[in-house]
Amino acid sequence: MTDHFADRLAEAVRRAGSRVCVGLDPAADRAAVALGRDPAEATGAPEAAAETILAFNRRLIEAVRPYCAIAKPQSAFYERWGAPGIEALRETMALCREAGLLVILDAKRSDIASTATAYAQAYLGGGPLACDALTVNPYLGADGIAPFLAEARGRGKGIFVLVKTSNPSSVELQNATLQDGRTVYELMGDFVEQWGEASVGECGYTDVGAVVGATFPAELAALRQRMPHTWFLVPGYGRQGGTAADVAVAFDSEGLGAIVNNSSGLMYAYESSGAADFATAAAEAARTMRDALESARKP
Amino acid sequence: MTDHFADRLAEAVRRAGSRVCVGLDPAADRAAVALGRDPAEATGAPEAAAETILAFNRRLIEAVRPYCAIAKPQSAFYERWGAPGIEALRETMALCREAGLLVILDAKRSDIASTATAYAQAYLGGGPLACDALTVNPYLGADGIAPFLAEARGRGKGIFVLVKTSNPSSVELQNATLQDGRTVYELMGDFVEQWGEASVGECGYTDVGAVVGATFPAELAALRQRMPHTWFLVPGYGRQGGTAADVAVAFDSEGLGAIVNNSSGLMYAYESSGAADFATAAAEAARTMRDALESARKP
Repeated sequence: MTDHFADRLAEAVRRAGSRVCVGLDPAADRAAVALGRDPAEATGAPEAAAETILAFNRRLIEAVRPYCAIAKPQSAFYERWGAPGIEALRETMALCREAGLLVILDAKRSDIASTATAYAQAYLGGGPLACDALTVNPYLGADGIAPFLAEARGRGKGIFVLVKTSNPSSVELQNATLQDGRTVYELMGDFVEQWGEASVGECGYTDVGAVVGATFPAELAALRQRMPHTWFLVPGYGRQGGTAADVAVAFDSEGLGAIVNNSSGLMYAYESSGAADFATAAAEAARTMRDALESARKP
Repeated sequence: MTDHFADRLAEAVRRAGSRVCVGLDPAADRAAVALGRDPAEATGAPEAAAETILAFNRRLIEAVRPYCAIAKPQSAFYERWGAPGIEALRETMALCREAGLLVILDAKRSDIASTATAYAQAYLGGGPLACDALTVNPYLGADGIAPFLAEARGRGKGIFVLVKTSNPSSVELQNATLQDGRTVYELMGDFVEQWGEASVGECGYTDVGAVVGATFPAELAALRQRMPHTWFLVPGYGRQGGTAADVAVAFDSEGLGAIVNNSSGLMYAYESSGAADFATAAAEAARTMRDALESARKP
């Protein structure tokens, strides 16, 4: 067991033989329907909602674990239900660890100084909500990054910085062109490489990853060239439009350097597959995605 | 009672005769010391920490309420303690409301689609953590703003979008100059005015506010001219270096258009004032700040 986040991620990917990250973003009403429960009852009180999403996650994690290396809970769906929801998040992350999955908490936090340190302590320290890596928003500059790295490093943990996101309006700011010719996403990509250069693991990657969407394949390819030491967390696969062919360029010759997230396409696969059981459908969808990525990444 | 967030904020400011926003960012160890308790005991378990920061907030809110119009809890310090911390946040926001203070939750959230909607439901809907306005990070563009406005509008709630933050490294991205000659913060300022233009209140301001730091007075003045319909939430006053003279330019002739936050300078005023009681010192510091802003804002 290595102590560097980049190497832990490489090890998780190699061990699983998969680059799939399962997104755990359960809306309580949809989770209830998947479980064959009454959605109105499941959303009637925070405690009921929290219990529903935890029950959903438990079955989902158990079903998809053979085909995934990483799990990525989306904090919003737990915060939605206040303290009981946060408790469900804590239990979900424990289930992921028990299943052998690395946990990236997708919370896109951003702040500075003692506030950023409080976030870092919450999610990268030793507290109840500790995960392996946290997504972070870079709008505030290095002051909003350093406190997270101060907490993460030495614990074998990491961060993923938003660089080029998968949504259509990401172009409004991220694709704006600067006077020096770079786009904003290129500027941020260069910062990410710089923030990581002090901490390169044996695998050649750093503990400062980047979020780069699958929905802009040209930008993904260009950023891969520009950021040779950066792990990419790639959202936008599946229902948002990204394909295995689109993301193949993000992997190096050993199949490292990127992990690909899928949330709705796994969680709610049963809605389009016609399967009676959501977990069975999720497992089948995860296996298919794993195989598609494995085929696409091979030279 | 008006139903538009901008008008509710104007009414709160007029009623209080104050532009002061008290930041509720309590670190459990420092809160324990202020309360005369053992900091090691207060941070030994999430439940103890949550009880400590709630006890601290209760006395602080009661002390400063005559001199403030708004309270701004900083979510990180509550998240730090998991579910018990979130429960303390819920109770803190209830105490603020009972004290007649509007509540801006400083969480700097950013996401898109159903995830952004989940955040919006959590903080701008009718759930346990509902506040009056939420701070939001604009890196993802309009897709990361619209779901918040969809939830806020019709409920008399609002958002504050990060435009020019108070920290030194905010220049790295925010002051980068685009090919069209604008800086990134000017681009975002223009977007904020545009996002708000569909919803202007009777007071002339919209329900899409902006976070603009006190520590860059020239930028603050320029953005005030550029964004005539936007409420400013101004951090960076006091210990970060901003003065009443620096922020005076943010107010219009009626003293509307800006509220000024102070966290450590109120919470921990007793450390430098020599007062025995932290709440007494906080009240005195809040009164002094209110008076300084009232003097500075008058033409």
